[in-house]
Amino acid sequence: MSKELTTRAADYSQWYNDLVIKGGLADYSAVRGCMVIKPYGYALWENMRDQLDKRFKETGHVNAYFPLFVPKSLFEAEEKNAEGFAKECAVVTHYRLKTDPDNKGKLIVDPEAKLEEELVVRPTSEAIIWNTYKGWIQSYRDLPLLINQWANVVRWEMRTRLFLRTAEFLWQEGHTAHATKAEAIEETEKMLDVYAEFVEEYMAVPVIKGIKTPNERFAGAEETYCIEAMMQDGKALQAGTSHFLGQNFAKAFDVQFMNKENKLEYVWATSWGVSTRLIGALIMAHSDDQGLIMPPKIAPLQVVIVPIYKGADSKPVIDEKVATIMAELKALGIRAKYDDNDNARPGWKFAEHELKGVPVRIAMGMRDLENNVVELARRDTKEKQTVPLDGLAGLVQNLLEEIQQNIYNRALAFRADHTSEANSWEEFVDLLDNKTGFVSAHWDGTAETEDAIKDKTKATIRCIPLNNKQEAGVCILSGKPSTQRVLFARAY
Amino acid sequence: MSKELTTRAADYSQWYNDLVIKGGLADYSAVRGCMVIKPYGYALWENMRDQLDKRFKETGHVNAYFPLFVPKSLFEAEEKNAEGFAKECAVVTHYRLKTDPDNKGKLIVDPEAKLEEELVVRPTSEAIIWNTYKGWIQSYRDLPLLINQWANVVRWEMRTRLFLRTAEFLWQEGHTAHATKAEAIEETEKMLDVYAEFVEEYMAVPVIKGIKTPNERFAGAEETYCIEAMMQDGKALQAGTSHFLGQNFAKAFDVQFMNKENKLEYVWATSWGVSTRLIGALIMAHSDDQGLIMPPKIAPLQVVIVPIYKGADSKPVIDEKVATIMAELKALGIRAKYDDNDNARPGWKFAEHELKGVPVRIAMGMRDLENNVVELARRDTKEKQTVPLDGLAGLVQNLLEEIQQNIYNRALAFRADHTSEANSWEEFVDLLDNKTGFVSAHWDGTAETEDAIKDKTKATIRCIPLNNKQEAGVCILSGKPSTQRVLFARAY
Repeated sequence: MSKELTTRAADYSQWYNDLVIKGGLADYSAVRGCMVIKPYGYALWENMRDQLDKRFKETGHVNAYFPLFVPKSLFEAEEKNAEGFAKECAVVTHYRLKTDPDNKGKLIVDPEAKLEEELVVRPTSEAIIWNTYKGWIQSYRDLPLLINQWANVVRWEMRTRLFLRTAEFLWQEGHTAHATKAEAIEETEKMLDVYAEFVEEYMAVPVIKGIKTPNERFAGAEETYCIEAMMQDGKALQAGTSHFLGQNFAKAFDVQFMNKENKLEYVWATSWGVSTRLIGALIMAHSDDQGLIMPPKIAPLQVVIVPIYKGADSKPVIDEKVATIMAELKALGIRAKYDDNDNARPGWKFAEHELKGVPVRIAMGMRDLENNVVELARRDTKEKQTVPLDGLAGLVQNLLEEIQQNIYNRALAFRADHTSEANSWEEFVDLLDNKTGFVSAHWDGTAETEDAIKDKTKATIRCIPLNNKQEAGVCILSGKPSTQRVLFARAY
Repeated sequence: MSKELTTRAADYSQWYNDLVIKGGLADYSAVRGCMVIKPYGYALWENMRDQLDKRFKETGHVNAYFPLFVPKSLFEAEEKNAEGFAKECAVVTHYRLKTDPDNKGKLIVDPEAKLEEELVVRPTSEAIIWNTYKGWIQSYRDLPLLINQWANVVRWEMRTRLFLRTAEFLWQEGHTAHATKAEAIEETEKMLDVYAEFVEEYMAVPVIKGIKTPNERFAGAEETYCIEAMMQDGKALQAGTSHFLGQNFAKAFDVQFMNKENKLEYVWATSWGVSTRLIGALIMAHSDDQGLIMPPKIAPLQVVIVPIYKGADSKPVIDEKVATIMAELKALGIRAKYDDNDNARPGWKFAEHELKGVPVRIAMGMRDLENNVVELARRDTKEKQTVPLDGLAGLVQNLLEEIQQNIYNRALAFRADHTSEANSWEEFVDLLDNKTGFVSAHWDGTAETEDAIKDKTKATIRCIPLNNKQEAGVCILSGKPSTQRVLFARAY
């Protein structure tokens, strides 16, 4: 293993890239802005996906799959949505390649295979889905439709970062249809809660629930709810969004239903999504200069056991003991691996597992075995202890829970330390520059002021927290009256 | 529910489409050749995927994710593969739309956002994956790489059929890298066995394992193994393929490794895949004129309970009893639903569940309840029986197993009935036209004869069965000497 990680202090951004690549989560690809999700990263995503999927199903949703392509005429039907995504659309214009007549062995796009109508590679699926819902919804009896899709989407971003912002990414997108506005809003809020609960309980990342300002709303939404997380460099990261779409898409695609009073009405909509971007949040919330720190509940590997011995005859003795431990761990549902690869030394393995953020490491040597003990090391605090073999599995199970709680608490304390109130422009700028983090400040509620603050400081309004305290104040920039503070931060 | 299914005898092809659409599995979309997989169809796919995924992991594979797009220059690197897929490639040429200056509210492809190099939407991922493997493989210690991907792929087919042949489909593609030829061949055969076992045991569809003729090989493969299934119209359907790719991709992408003798060698490759096409196979192998017949092991819903009552005061009595039954079924891991929707009558529900192929239906009326019995109906044979409530869950569990076995046996008997030997050209044509099914016949081993037979009869060589009996004979068309029979059929 080539360790040599950049430290956070030296170059935060390089530190992040080092963790992603050297930690085996993802790799650059030959396609501009697209990443390869490596097996370790994908195993993490699978654990996240399975937990989310379980919650979606528990809340009454079913999965389906809609086409990758959106015909341009459908894409442009909901104007705001189309306008919002037009600049980052990959467009399929042809359906065939042919041999280059001037260069045998090379291919060219066949000009005779031009599509009559261009196809947009979905940047999000509202258009294709609402065009489909039109055929599925006639009466109130067909509602609600509670459908989710796990899919890849493409947004042609100019500046990309592994996981955080890639041209192609994996996500889920829920698209629901309701008979009433109240029910749609309830759904939007319910799914925000599902996200918040998952991110906090499983990823151990505390989040602020809030709503976006009109400026930061999803293109085509009436209201965008979000969860915002705090990274270790004091920047915010939007971890998930849930949109109340009003009747915008129903009107754009003419989706009406006969209500109980036998009258035609437009259908109410929501959409909500989280993506592989969450992996970026997880990395930046917990990891340290030695590598990744995985939250036990979704860690691809929770425990690794490393044998330490000299001479080949010691190995079988250790193997036998480890087999028993492995069986006990598995009986408790713990994801454990015995790393007895004899091409690498224990020290190398320790560093590797540290880099990969395996929550718990068990080292077992011959002397330990004689004393009926093992060395137990936790990744989050790097503490080691010698513990008896008897009852080891139970001890490990408790330790995993403790680590999960500890990294959550640590992230929560970090966020508390990096959340401040600013009551003047000078204080606001000083906090953003020197303390970093969330800055809670009064804002006059206008898009103009919001834009001006962004231009001057690169800070955006991350959200207006739900159940925000109402208090009289004056806007930090314009000095105009304000009724509440909002959360500002520089953000990913 | 609008029943009105076309019968198999009247129009097999329309019968199939009716089942897919009216059975709620899939729908046409606004994109030519692309389908929407509806919740019921997707739930079926999830069950299939989960079973396959489990087997892939048990055989040592891990999942990863590679980009959707393949730069043209990479796509063309392996010439045969490129040639094989060039004619059906969707090609991304631009990365931005802009407002149409002549038509406000409409979008056009921005001519200034033309990609320097066109991107092919993956029809299969060998090129992008082997280009990535180049960076991952240096030494024999890096081998084998046993990676699978669950993904969407696009092949611009001119004539499409729901599930069977769609422009976009979902699949898994395994891509493995090995140090030796023998190991790669072993992997290819192992994965064929995994497929065969899954399709037979879970989908209840018997398959023939074999190898393809050079004509029918995957573009870029040295050898293509396949499993072939028989549909109820006597046509064959290729249900899965596993390819030994030799060193073709390693050479095209220059992927070499240092072997144990410290010499550079090209890596050996395999790839293997099954897709949503399997759903088409499942439908056509088992279903009847009343609708779908789902194999219990992967049925989204295994049991449905329908209450039968008059007067609202009877309902709570039935509800209470059903709650107990549901709990008992769930305790056995049985996927059951209580269909107490009071907008529909029992007769309508019976027809609906029959159409959807739910394996077991339980009807419970007030009189049944007084007698402590229920009516149990099985979908495959349509037999009904009155059985005691005591021990019902266990009885249902056994019945599900019996149905699984029965539909497999039925498909196996059908295939046996539709597998014939032909010893002359006349006999061959007569069997294909009048008996349909697999025809086992001698072939002289040349591509010319194979092509001529296809031109004359539309029958192709489905495979040379594994462990085929060697016997002297003469080719049915050319009369030239032959050493073995091969399996011909008309196919999907």
